[in-house]
Amino acid sequence: MRTLWRNAHLVTLAEANGWGFIRRGALIVDDATLRWVGSDADLPAGLSVDAEHHLDGELVTPGLVDCHTHLVYGGQRAREFELRLEGASYEDIANAGGGIRSTVAATRAAGDGALFYAARLRALALMAEGVTSLEIKSGYGLSALHEARCLRVARRLGEELALTVRTTCLSAHALPPEFEGRADDYIAAVCAWLPSLHAEKLVDAVDAFCERIAFTPAQTRRVFETAHALGLPVKLHAEQLSDSGGAALAAEFGALSCEHLEYLSEAGVQAMAKAGSVAVLLPGAYYFLRETQLPPVAALRAAGVPIAIATDHNPGSSPTLSPLLMLNMACTLFRLTPEEALRGMTVNAARALDLRDRGTLTVGRRADFVAWNVEHPNELSYWFGYNPCARVIAGGKERSAE
Amino acid sequence: MRTLWRNAHLVTLAEANGWGFIRRGALIVDDATLRWVGSDADLPAGLSVDAEHHLDGELVTPGLVDCHTHLVYGGQRAREFELRLEGASYEDIANAGGGIRSTVAATRAAGDGALFYAARLRALALMAEGVTSLEIKSGYGLSALHEARCLRVARRLGEELALTVRTTCLSAHALPPEFEGRADDYIAAVCAWLPSLHAEKLVDAVDAFCERIAFTPAQTRRVFETAHALGLPVKLHAEQLSDSGGAALAAEFGALSCEHLEYLSEAGVQAMAKAGSVAVLLPGAYYFLRETQLPPVAALRAAGVPIAIATDHNPGSSPTLSPLLMLNMACTLFRLTPEEALRGMTVNAARALDLRDRGTLTVGRRADFVAWNVEHPNELSYWFGYNPCARVIAGGKERSAE
Repeated sequence: MRTLWRNAHLVTLAEANGWGFIRRGALIVDDATLRWVGSDADLPAGLSVDAEHHLDGELVTPGLVDCHTHLVYGGQRAREFELRLEGASYEDIANAGGGIRSTVAATRAAGDGALFYAARLRALALMAEGVTSLEIKSGYGLSALHEARCLRVARRLGEELALTVRTTCLSAHALPPEFEGRADDYIAAVCAWLPSLHAEKLVDAVDAFCERIAFTPAQTRRVFETAHALGLPVKLHAEQLSDSGGAALAAEFGALSCEHLEYLSEAGVQAMAKAGSVAVLLPGAYYFLRETQLPPVAALRAAGVPIAIATDHNPGSSPTLSPLLMLNMACTLFRLTPEEALRGMTVNAARALDLRDRGTLTVGRRADFVAWNVEHPNELSYWFGYNPCARVIAGGKERSAE
Repeated sequence: MRTLWRNAHLVTLAEANGWGFIRRGALIVDDATLRWVGSDADLPAGLSVDAEHHLDGELVTPGLVDCHTHLVYGGQRAREFELRLEGASYEDIANAGGGIRSTVAATRAAGDGALFYAARLRALALMAEGVTSLEIKSGYGLSALHEARCLRVARRLGEELALTVRTTCLSAHALPPEFEGRADDYIAAVCAWLPSLHAEKLVDAVDAFCERIAFTPAQTRRVFETAHALGLPVKLHAEQLSDSGGAALAAEFGALSCEHLEYLSEAGVQAMAKAGSVAVLLPGAYYFLRETQLPPVAALRAAGVPIAIATDHNPGSSPTLSPLLMLNMACTLFRLTPEEALRGMTVNAARALDLRDRGTLTVGRRADFVAWNVEHPNELSYWFGYNPCARVIAGGKERSAE
């Protein structure tokens, strides 16, 4: 099946720098793969295609990649948000059964169908803003049974929606109540159940939350060693609230990415650069938690560490479903340029998920692309709370409204 | 024409405090007016209606009122946003023809149709998030001819869309280039053209930008005196970047509202309270401009000044089209409660526009309401970058997708 898409302005991101504009461009797609990318005027003579689509002069970019989400969970935490604004402290809320443990309880209590349909609604909202690849982390089940249920829901989303889903096992996200005071025992349990999740093909990568309010570097290391033995790549929630040296530890294991990173040290930057890890910055959580410590963007740039941007969708610290708003926040709050922001949600995000076959409009890559009703790609970061997405093509096929 | 809406959970905001919940509620609408509001179980016996609509257990709130926008303009300023992130100073941008003057030039250069269709697209985005009443300010024309053109576009939006539009003449927004160095002469010109705009019924209220980078209190007073003589209510862009005493001046004229207000003094708060002016807070501009001075929310609460929230949509300092995101920013950045935020975009915003017939679900008020796919109204502020709007009823009629 060969299709031709023409009359678009292409933003290819094909080179390491610059938008890679092709004015009045065209794309030839063979099945799910980009076969030809160039100017409409240069289309091969005598070309025969099965279908030809005329875009309306829209701007076409690579499909968006949301490389850090916690999309599968039960309940929500709006009441907690409200209580805090009415003056309740975090402690009051924890004592009232709030916080992450309330999401763990709601997730465990939810049926598979309820988990699936709630996550599906969220995935559709992301897809409506041009997302074609999505990472989903577990981490609200926190038992062999419930972690597996959440990862199966994530897999099912990938099967039923026109979307690539990458699953990440984040069992080392928080300590479940039944392990209160026994964090090492919990880590041992996680390391014990990881092989069976892997055997069921539920795990594309392994993540942990290395932070004084979560797990220590030593505990994180045990999880990584287990992942390593299984041949699974690792990523890490690191240096969000303090510098615990997590990024350097992750780099030792050749981590795909380290995520959050507000308190990342220069040594951490250098370790990431050496390991080739991607820095995943999460402006939604920074905004929602009213953080003031900015991630070291200048140091990451200087060291050549690729920067990705993601929604971090989760009910506690980033209840957003707008990847485009994250582009604006990456610029407004973290001072990325619009080009860096867009690379952060395309090619660099794909790299953070080890999806090397996508993220640019380049021959041989997967045909995931989005047509936008804007004149210039800087508008994708400039407008906020506005979705100019006109059409989404995932794996060579135009996605129908669902 | 009598219609019945049932099987909804109502958030009436009917009292001064509290959500005013009615679980399993119903609404009876006669033409464009709410005739009956109550529990489904209490519906009058033997009721005869022309049409009956069953909602799906959705949450119904009053229609949203966006009481501060600059929706009609030519061009956009994404390149300026990008240049600034690439390190250009405001001065560099001004020298390169950027800033508000670039929008004035683009607005003057745009045809009536182009201005109308660009503004219509923006209005539709606001309407898709539940906006049923909208204020539109002029202020990018800055001449008798172009201010009139912009206000006519605003009026036409109100005529063609299922939306109430209130027009505000903000000719005293910035100094046009042809009056460089002659601000008093420009104010004289504004005062001279205001009567003809009023005679054409293009003006519902008069606004000015009182700030060291715009117009002085003395100049603002001249504009207000002209408005007063014409019987037009006034509002003011006041205390956004410094305390120039604008709010107190506006209060002298019984202003409907003062807007922005980050630098509002206690004396200004008291003057507003006495005058009954609404404080319109604009978290989008605060966010986008990376301001750090918070408006005096506690003082406004203590003095009983009603607080409204709006998008301030404009291409320079608040290019957002999401009223729901403004609810979240009002909570996250300004620490309003979700109830205060929703009142700020319904009943208090209506008051800022002198639309006393709407903003709550109360018998006798206009039948503007929205059905949302959420369980509780605190979710309207909690999620960000997500639109759970299911149906919009404006003036008693369900709005069709346009």
